[in-house]
Amino acid sequence: MSGERLIYLPLGGAGEIGMNAYVYGYGRPGKERLMLVDLGVAFPDMDTSPGVDLIVPDISWLVENLDRLDGIVITHGHEDHIGALAHLWPALKKPVYARKFTASLGRLKFEEAGLPQDAITTMEARPASVDIGPFKVQFLPVSHSIPESAALIIDSPAGRIMHTGDFKRDPTPVVGEAWDEALMEAVAAEAPVKAMMCDSTNVFSPLPGRSESSLAEPLAELIRSAGGMVVATTFASNVARLKTLAEAARAADRSICVLGRAMKRMVSVAQETGVLTGFPRIVSPEEALEIPRRNLMLIVTGSQGERRAASAALSRGKYLGFELKSGDTFLFSSKTIPGNERGVLRIMNALSEVGVNIVDDNNGKYHVSGHANRPDLEHAHRVFLPDMLVPMHGEHRHLREHVRIAHEAGIAGIIATNGTMVDLTGEVPKVAGHVETGRVYLDGTAMVGALDGVVRDRIRLALNGLVMVTVILDEQNEPLGEAWVELMGLPQIGRGERQLTETLETDLTSFLESASGKILSDDDKLDEALKRIVRQVSMEEIGKKPEVRVVISRLSAE
Amino acid sequence: MSGERLIYLPLGGAGEIGMNAYVYGYGRPGKERLMLVDLGVAFPDMDTSPGVDLIVPDISWLVENLDRLDGIVITHGHEDHIGALAHLWPALKKPVYARKFTASLGRLKFEEAGLPQDAITTMEARPASVDIGPFKVQFLPVSHSIPESAALIIDSPAGRIMHTGDFKRDPTPVVGEAWDEALMEAVAAEAPVKAMMCDSTNVFSPLPGRSESSLAEPLAELIRSAGGMVVATTFASNVARLKTLAEAARAADRSICVLGRAMKRMVSVAQETGVLTGFPRIVSPEEALEIPRRNLMLIVTGSQGERRAASAALSRGKYLGFELKSGDTFLFSSKTIPGNERGVLRIMNALSEVGVNIVDDNNGKYHVSGHANRPDLEHAHRVFLPDMLVPMHGEHRHLREHVRIAHEAGIAGIIATNGTMVDLTGEVPKVAGHVETGRVYLDGTAMVGALDGVVRDRIRLALNGLVMVTVILDEQNEPLGEAWVELMGLPQIGRGERQLTETLETDLTSFLESASGKILSDDDKLDEALKRIVRQVSMEEIGKKPEVRVVISRLSAE
Repeated sequence: MSGERLIYLPLGGAGEIGMNAYVYGYGRPGKERLMLVDLGVAFPDMDTSPGVDLIVPDISWLVENLDRLDGIVITHGHEDHIGALAHLWPALKKPVYARKFTASLGRLKFEEAGLPQDAITTMEARPASVDIGPFKVQFLPVSHSIPESAALIIDSPAGRIMHTGDFKRDPTPVVGEAWDEALMEAVAAEAPVKAMMCDSTNVFSPLPGRSESSLAEPLAELIRSAGGMVVATTFASNVARLKTLAEAARAADRSICVLGRAMKRMVSVAQETGVLTGFPRIVSPEEALEIPRRNLMLIVTGSQGERRAASAALSRGKYLGFELKSGDTFLFSSKTIPGNERGVLRIMNALSEVGVNIVDDNNGKYHVSGHANRPDLEHAHRVFLPDMLVPMHGEHRHLREHVRIAHEAGIAGIIATNGTMVDLTGEVPKVAGHVETGRVYLDGTAMVGALDGVVRDRIRLALNGLVMVTVILDEQNEPLGEAWVELMGLPQIGRGERQLTETLETDLTSFLESASGKILSDDDKLDEALKRIVRQVSMEEIGKKPEVRVVISRLSAE
Repeated sequence: MSGERLIYLPLGGAGEIGMNAYVYGYGRPGKERLMLVDLGVAFPDMDTSPGVDLIVPDISWLVENLDRLDGIVITHGHEDHIGALAHLWPALKKPVYARKFTASLGRLKFEEAGLPQDAITTMEARPASVDIGPFKVQFLPVSHSIPESAALIIDSPAGRIMHTGDFKRDPTPVVGEAWDEALMEAVAAEAPVKAMMCDSTNVFSPLPGRSESSLAEPLAELIRSAGGMVVATTFASNVARLKTLAEAARAADRSICVLGRAMKRMVSVAQETGVLTGFPRIVSPEEALEIPRRNLMLIVTGSQGERRAASAALSRGKYLGFELKSGDTFLFSSKTIPGNERGVLRIMNALSEVGVNIVDDNNGKYHVSGHANRPDLEHAHRVFLPDMLVPMHGEHRHLREHVRIAHEAGIAGIIATNGTMVDLTGEVPKVAGHVETGRVYLDGTAMVGALDGVVRDRIRLALNGLVMVTVILDEQNEPLGEAWVELMGLPQIGRGERQLTETLETDLTSFLESASGKILSDDDKLDEALKRIVRQVSMEEIGKKPEVRVVISRLSAE
């Protein structure tokens, strides 16, 4: 029916790596029935989001249009695709669809959050399908670094969408399904692809991706030749790598012990759902402590330098009875995500101090990426020959480059960042509008908007330190006693070895003693005057303008 | 004379990259006459040192032994070797020796700091020498990324030390002296080298370093083929790169404009001291704005993503009249130092949004390092054949690896991190003791010890936010009015949409009303009780335990 349209609206993941959340809609403009694909998290950092626990997409647009939302599809079990589901589902309360392993991970999260586990429906792979509003959705197995990753075949009245999810082109992925060329071609032959929404993370990697199975031999050799204990770290969710590492350890006659809650959970869910088989027996930490070092390998969390994970704990000394020492080997079977370098180097140097041999990915010898590189992306474009390509899951520079290579191949492309609604109905993609999106911080149990100023204040405190001033006035607006100053995060001593607190209190008190009634009777004026003095004196004494908070207490006659 | 010894004591730079400061001594134990080589800074980051301006070495040991210190030698003009000189010289007040260009940079710093410029003596290269206590010191020209970098030939009664400073093995360094193989061999033939203190930053780079001159052609080609304006960024102090870039621009018929104070200063000092010749005329920003984009290249500061530098300013929009747009090219002729990735990516993505073509070092096509790679280090070891090797300027992992390759070559080596005093007198290096060292933060105009708690408090404020509580008690220890609460960096709303401030005030006030006189009369007990309530209520309301400051005001009868 004319007048209806097919839309795409990223709410997260487009213009950043992480926090994936993509909306599709079909219907009359403003009345489209909607479907959400993925609901992931991003991780905070000290530079931009200190103290924050997790970052989730701002889905207020979706909540405002909740009566139009028919369901939620999760492509795979990585935190940047499923991590926000349990946090945000209570605001959506719509049916969730995922493949078995992903659904199991989701139900565990729902169980912990006290949410109804039956809200999540397990889906079989294509040709099984589910109707979500006007969309018919099939889960197409693709290889990635976690089992049961799926691309989505989304059929709409306006044509077929191929939503790749995260994928790589791996014919021998160790765990999970291979990239099945024949299957892909069969799917491509079924129906033309109107639009392809495509993973962009590795668009700058110029060489074809390598298979997970290429790591088996180098890892086995490394572990075999190691003298003492071997510790290997990788992403907890990289189930294929866990298996590759475990098999290499077994080949070197080593028992395996897994440290880190997320990793243990991932292995057990993978085993329970049958996607991980033949994994060697995991010994408990207690058992492991009885095993000679040269017959033991620990597989641990914290490959990104996270302070609270097992890798960092081991680098700081004894952890669960284990203590690394000279001659042991610590392997980072992982790549450091930009921004995490400092934490990873901190661990490496701490281990270096006790004489541990540190092995990094060695330019790919001990790690392969789970994402499609540029030639693999180009290959996928050729297989599905979409009318248009919309890059997703990438920073702006990734999206831009991905559009560029699409254009080179004669495919219409568009850069659509979070909040950009794209109309896919015609021959070429068109911007149809913009909606407010952004980041929401999960801070303790509270949700805080990224622009609410809460985190901005924390950053200011961290950069500038704080002066707290307390003054008490009586009912005649006369100061009672002296101004009271406390410092936080500021040097105590100013010029000429003077105590900053005392200098401030002296200057503030003498101001109070001589201030006019007009100022003393007006909270705002008094606050401003006191702040100005604090900033000025601090600048003179310590060369810094601190944050200032003034508490004015007025005693009334009782 | 027996009983005398030759010692080495790093106070900065050994166990970290940056903040170089190395002490040599000769004499009876505890009475050695001392010489300091380099006095550099390290740069703060949000994770570990928010709000700090610069990090300098803790030289208190040197200050305690000031009567034994005879002089200070600066190897070259990079901030991590000279940056702390003007800040710490007032505590030392000893003669400073450096080559002409380095000395000029030092004198500029002294001028700004109001220090006597004649404290810095200009040295000619070898065979000129200066006696500093028991040491005879010669400046041996080496190639690096700044002109007049020098290794030091330090002759002592116990033998010769070769202190490499920062160096690379570049026969055609564009600016500054080449690595002169014949000269090195002549020096090596003069006298045996007892100990070699050697740059370690690039010990993990497996391939031989490439010459600065290898960049000329690729850069010229890139700039020639660019359509719009070209902006190139690199380290301000990389004078060779500035020339390489400028010549490439000229070859492409582009005028050059330099943005960024540090970079302009570096060019002018290099020209004045005669180490930079044939540099094309630099046009002013005003002139540049009149030049067609395709005939202009800006060379700008901020290659490490520094928020206040020109690169970041240009990425945010108009800066000094310049505004980047689609079709322009932005070149990072630099490598991102670990930890700076996030800032650099922020710039790249901001530029991507306006359609600028972003070019990074392209795996070394547009950037070469200024440091010796592993094969170059091994070559230097072979040339000088030292009895012992002491790696410097590197994180622990670098020092360890450098000792390992020395051992492989049959050279005695020792890992000596900051504060480790090494006795070099015998056949092999021996640890002779440890002195207290560490980092001192320059914070505004104040010096703060890294362990003073000032920065720790800032980090806590950033992670946890702050609750400030004010209570006023009368002379009978009765609360006057209610408890007053202010929040900083915390969510305003807790569970059930309650205002956190109000919930806290209600609970604190009702505690005050029912508290015993024993608690109300005791500041410490009252403080602790109020803090406990704040933490507990905050945990219930927002799932977070904030920092708490309590101000108790007691009114006395006047």
